[in-house]
Amino acid sequence: MAGSMNRQIVLKRRPVGAPAPDDFALADSPRPSPGEGEVLARTIYLSLDPYMRGRMNEGRSYARPVELGQVMVGGTVSEVLESRYPGLVRGDFVLGYDGWQEYAVAKGPTLRKLDPGIAPISTALGVLGMPGLTAYVGLLDIGHPRPGETVVVSAAAGAVGAVVGQLAKIKGCRAVGVAGAKEKCEYAVQDLGFDACVSHRAPDLVSALREACPTGVDVYFDNVGGAVLGAVLRLINPGARIPLCGLITQYNAVEPPAGPNLAPILVNRALIKGFIVSDHVDRTADFLRDTVQWMREGRLRYREDVVEGLANAPRAFIGLLEGRNFGKLLVRVSEDSSL
Amino acid sequence: MAGSMNRQIVLKRRPVGAPAPDDFALADSPRPSPGEGEVLARTIYLSLDPYMRGRMNEGRSYARPVELGQVMVGGTVSEVLESRYPGLVRGDFVLGYDGWQEYAVAKGPTLRKLDPGIAPISTALGVLGMPGLTAYVGLLDIGHPRPGETVVVSAAAGAVGAVVGQLAKIKGCRAVGVAGAKEKCEYAVQDLGFDACVSHRAPDLVSALREACPTGVDVYFDNVGGAVLGAVLRLINPGARIPLCGLITQYNAVEPPAGPNLAPILVNRALIKGFIVSDHVDRTADFLRDTVQWMREGRLRYREDVVEGLANAPRAFIGLLEGRNFGKLLVRVSEDSSL
Repeated sequence: MAGSMNRQIVLKRRPVGAPAPDDFALADSPRPSPGEGEVLARTIYLSLDPYMRGRMNEGRSYARPVELGQVMVGGTVSEVLESRYPGLVRGDFVLGYDGWQEYAVAKGPTLRKLDPGIAPISTALGVLGMPGLTAYVGLLDIGHPRPGETVVVSAAAGAVGAVVGQLAKIKGCRAVGVAGAKEKCEYAVQDLGFDACVSHRAPDLVSALREACPTGVDVYFDNVGGAVLGAVLRLINPGARIPLCGLITQYNAVEPPAGPNLAPILVNRALIKGFIVSDHVDRTADFLRDTVQWMREGRLRYREDVVEGLANAPRAFIGLLEGRNFGKLLVRVSEDSSL
Repeated sequence: MAGSMNRQIVLKRRPVGAPAPDDFALADSPRPSPGEGEVLARTIYLSLDPYMRGRMNEGRSYARPVELGQVMVGGTVSEVLESRYPGLVRGDFVLGYDGWQEYAVAKGPTLRKLDPGIAPISTALGVLGMPGLTAYVGLLDIGHPRPGETVVVSAAAGAVGAVVGQLAKIKGCRAVGVAGAKEKCEYAVQDLGFDACVSHRAPDLVSALREACPTGVDVYFDNVGGAVLGAVLRLINPGARIPLCGLITQYNAVEPPAGPNLAPILVNRALIKGFIVSDHVDRTADFLRDTVQWMREGRLRYREDVVEGLANAPRAFIGLLEGRNFGKLLVRVSEDSSL
């Protein structure tokens, strides 16, 4: 009986590199029935998002992988067909995480009831959903844009990037997008109000970005990594913030990228923070108090590598850069009469 | 008259790659005389530090370059020979920034008077000076080590690294160093009390580090960049912090490093912060309130790219990773009866 079946798309094979159609398979299973506290829902919209590529790999990223033969995961907007959960009734529209299938049973408390009067229900998967929240917290809570600053966002016409640029404008910033196709750049500027949008296919991306960001880059909301990240890094201003949201250029990669792979920074919500000690001289008194104390207690030791005579400074310095010193490198320029 | 001369080392030529002895030149100039509010000081110790390599380049880093023919800059511990500054008298020992020369005139307020009774005056250039303060603020204020966590530090036997590891122990952490020579690793463990120290010359650095960090890496205090940074990134834990203090592997480089060059992160005191939206669901109410408002005001627009039918989801998803979608990518799985 067709009416009681549930069409699904399952992960058939783990992709190597870019996914291929044969990595997925259509499957039919019996339509499930809701238990106590659950609802049966018919999927109207399924959201497709780049993070799903990570779930197709065997290794754990920040979430467990989809198992072979399992239905692909994904956010959904659905209509409740049958409810055994007090908070929902037949006909309600709900946001859930039912995956790539026509019907699903879900526990009531995991669903968010949608009001079609506020906005089209599909927006619960986009501008009013996970991508919108991603843009909101990434730009506002991590990027901390201040009026007058320049915000650059990659994948600027995508679900997240489009919101980031518009939030930047709302916050009084200059918004500069990076996208591929010319039409996407035009869309970002003409429809979304970005101040500029640069194609990452530009022959000289750094120059194109420099022109679009005449006062440098204060916030770079990165969705892609790779060459765009490398180019933007060359233009950042003092105190710049880089919310690392995605690394789409790496998701299909078979080999690790050249240089430091920032994927673990993203996955682990980690932080790289440059610092220069001269910004922190206000900590000198605390530092001296603690350090002298720890030295007296024998908990903090040091070693000096003393080179005799100013004329030997160049050779000693050359060795320092090669790691040839052992301990703090000092040049004794004249007699130490304090000893 | 030799007694009235001042031997100096000046920058003769800007190095390309590693500095060579001929990039420096010895110069003799007349010994200067202090003006009102100044002192004449005889240099006892000159500090040599990796940051000086950056000052030899033409381009501005976080400080102005040394000009050709100018005395090389550097921290110094000196004895006051003549004072026209009320706070200092002949015979006082002072910490200053007099550079690579035997004598210098300095403004009184720029000098810190040293007490040889507290610690040898040379320590004002090391454990009680800029390198020590660097370790202190970088580890404590940026790395925020918590008891039981694992702290890794590169250039572990150097002036900064040696302090970082010992501070990590004082704060109840596991301290793991990375250094080159075997003797430096032994020094870090046996003399400084590090729990382990790994040579970056190990045939399999990642495995060696993994063995030394059985519970992963929570803080990586980076002095070197390059392959060590790449290896440690593979072992970081959720919420890891990476104070970026130095990139010694890059200082002599003629070509930019492979992959994203993090030097601008250091120089600009910038921040890269990975984030995952699921950690931030507590912001959903704020997000929805603001976003619905901005949409109503026409300040926030969106575009959807709707693919018809579940069977087309794999192809659409494959295209998403190639940037072929335009707007939020959705699959319409069944009729939207809310419209």
